Amino acid sequence: MKVLITGMDGYIGWALSLHMLNRGHTVIGIDNFLRRKMVREVNCQSAITIQPMKKRLELIKQVLGKEIAFEQGDMLDYDFLKAVLHKYKPNSIVNLAQQPSPAYSMINAKHATFSQRNNVCGILNLMWAMREETPDAHVTTLGTMGEYGQPNMPIPEGFFTVEYKGMKDTLPFPRQAGSFYHWSKVQSSDNAFYCCNLWDLKATDIMQGVVYGTQTDEVILNEGLRTRFDFDECFGTMINRACACAITGHPIIPYGKGWQTRGYIALRDSIQCLTLSTENPPTDENSVHGYRVMNQFDECYSCNEIADRVGLVAEKLGFETEVKHIENPRVEKEEHFYQPIHEKLYRLGFKPLYTLEEELEIMLTDLDHWKDRILAYEHKIMPKITWR
Amino acid sequence: MKVLITGMDGYIGWALSLHMLNRGHTVIGIDNFLRRKMVREVNCQSAITIQPMKKRLELIKQVLGKEIAFEQGDMLDYDFLKAVLHKYKPNSIVNLAQQPSPAYSMINAKHATFSQRNNVCGILNLMWAMREETPDAHVTTLGTMGEYGQPNMPIPEGFFTVEYKGMKDTLPFPRQAGSFYHWSKVQSSDNAFYCCNLWDLKATDIMQGVVYGTQTDEVILNEGLRTRFDFDECFGTMINRACACAITGHPIIPYGKGWQTRGYIALRDSIQCLTLSTENPPTDENSVHGYRVMNQFDECYSCNEIADRVGLVAEKLGFETEVKHIENPRVEKEEHFYQPIHEKLYRLGFKPLYTLEEELEIMLTDLDHWKDRILAYEHKIMPKITWR
Repeated sequence: MKVLITGMDGYIGWALSLHMLNRGHTVIGIDNFLRRKMVREVNCQSAITIQPMKKRLELIKQVLGKEIAFEQGDMLDYDFLKAVLHKYKPNSIVNLAQQPSPAYSMINAKHATFSQRNNVCGILNLMWAMREETPDAHVTTLGTMGEYGQPNMPIPEGFFTVEYKGMKDTLPFPRQAGSFYHWSKVQSSDNAFYCCNLWDLKATDIMQGVVYGTQTDEVILNEGLRTRFDFDECFGTMINRACACAITGHPIIPYGKGWQTRGYIALRDSIQCLTLSTENPPTDENSVHGYRVMNQFDECYSCNEIADRVGLVAEKLGFETEVKHIENPRVEKEEHFYQPIHEKLYRLGFKPLYTLEEELEIMLTDLDHWKDRILAYEHKIMPKITWR
Repeated sequence: MKVLITGMDGYIGWALSLHMLNRGHTVIGIDNFLRRKMVREVNCQSAITIQPMKKRLELIKQVLGKEIAFEQGDMLDYDFLKAVLHKYKPNSIVNLAQQPSPAYSMINAKHATFSQRNNVCGILNLMWAMREETPDAHVTTLGTMGEYGQPNMPIPEGFFTVEYKGMKDTLPFPRQAGSFYHWSKVQSSDNAFYCCNLWDLKATDIMQGVVYGTQTDEVILNEGLRTRFDFDECFGTMINRACACAITGHPIIPYGKGWQTRGYIALRDSIQCLTLSTENPPTDENSVHGYRVMNQFDECYSCNEIADRVGLVAEKLGFETEVKHIENPRVEKEEHFYQPIHEKLYRLGFKPLYTLEEELEIMLTDLDHWKDRILAYEHKIMPKITWR
């Protein structure tokens, strides 16, 4: 297939691009390097050294013997996006070009509106460009499990059939997001859903759990092919931050009571799922007018469970760890029911590769090499941005 | 009360500002004159002559003997908005500053993204500014009944309690909007809902039906105090357009089969409702964490019913009318169940002032004075923008 990956330079985008190429697909990537800029803006750095795009592209050629076509540009620039689709005519697109941080979106009004504008208008431009240039292509776009919030009932995959005042209908499952970023994803889902209905486009909307991990089969082929690993409060995810803490001896810091429960998925499994979605476009059976929602995670854990597991594995490897609950900077339920359904990806063949403990052992061993780069920015681990 | 009205120069904003002033409130208005610019952009004009803001403000003083403080600026300019709240410290805000046209949002990618950015980031800036400057103020913000779409069940006022897989919860009613504009309103509702939860702000989200009419008690006090009346495909609403057709002898043009059913409300009743909301902020009983949704319309009619009623009243007044169904430029259900609930405003005291027929008679008699201004742009009545 000919696959366009937006946000190719990011944590997932980079690993996915290599994997798609390795599987024999033709890969085109776009990026405006927003993630690098934002991490610089919050005065932090990736724990794992990453190469500039020029170097990355050269290494791909050397190591994998194949090339990725890369175009630098912004999803907010409609003419750029349309020109890329016109030039390459991809039959599949994976949309990862996003402002991906809840905390970043809560800094102030400007960061909130930037996050919503960037994510919402980005997908909207993409769907319009698809309509114009590649109406038969399928886009897999990245939402988040956080769109649903924590309702007091099981969470279906996008839609549910309910009765109200004696009548029945199948409706989008209500969204109750927990940051301006999460709402930008709800709004992106709205746009994707609507464009499929309107123009008979095909989209898969991935409600993804929290991603963690440092490795995929491809990124470890060469040190210069490594993907980024953030641990600051904005761009680091829960498990990744806990591992960075364990490595440096910084306390692992669950927010508040720590019973906040979320779905989690390893980076390599996320890549596996995004590939499954790309290679198996929506059908009439598993979509609503071409719009398919898949909940993409492996297991659910509370923050406390994560802190415990990271601690156990780290101590087995010889690190000393400590768990210290801190005041929750977020506004969120700290104890709640949580039972999301995740069946569709398993039906497509998803098989998680490692257990959490196995993956943690790989991560911690791996991150130890970059310990100094985390220590240099250890002061970025404690959260300073508050939701209130 | 001290009331800030955003979008003061618009169809509803202008009439509401005069009404609030007349009721003894202190009124502050802001506007960036977007509506005037957009109507010029689509090459049309208001049927009713409206004055420039400078002249409008002078006339208010002359006719009502009181003044409105006006500040020109854009809701996308956070610093402007914050400065206005800081300067005037309103205790109530009515947010009408929007790109209000479904068709305009469907022109192309740039109009779609502009519509979403303008409306979504506008409310977001407003809520942030409220948090900073007037945390105790109450904002009444304009959503639309179109957010809900046409589900196969009664439509509650914002939230519903349902059972799913044996568990029960009260959730936001799912939204299924029908244009990028309508989705921008869904997304604006998301932001208003979330900010109330997050920062204990108070908001009333008005799911308004289609508004029609030319008169309120205040706008008829002086010809220079009249509010605008659009009839082009973008900015004219269903009844207003049908009346413009009846006046000029243009066929009344229901789209498609014409059984699309919507809630309608007269301009003077909309003003009444927005005033009721302003003067009766949300309470714990009628809101979810300070966020209250009210469905604001009087009666539901299909396009065919509207066409018939306008035809009957117009013929009684001596106009010859014709109804001609045209191909539907929109993507929408042309036959559907429709049963929205609208109780909250009635509980606050809402009493529609006239029947549809009475209001139509006033409108048609009134519009006849501006017949030449409609005739000059009669070619703008037929729709050219398609949803597909």
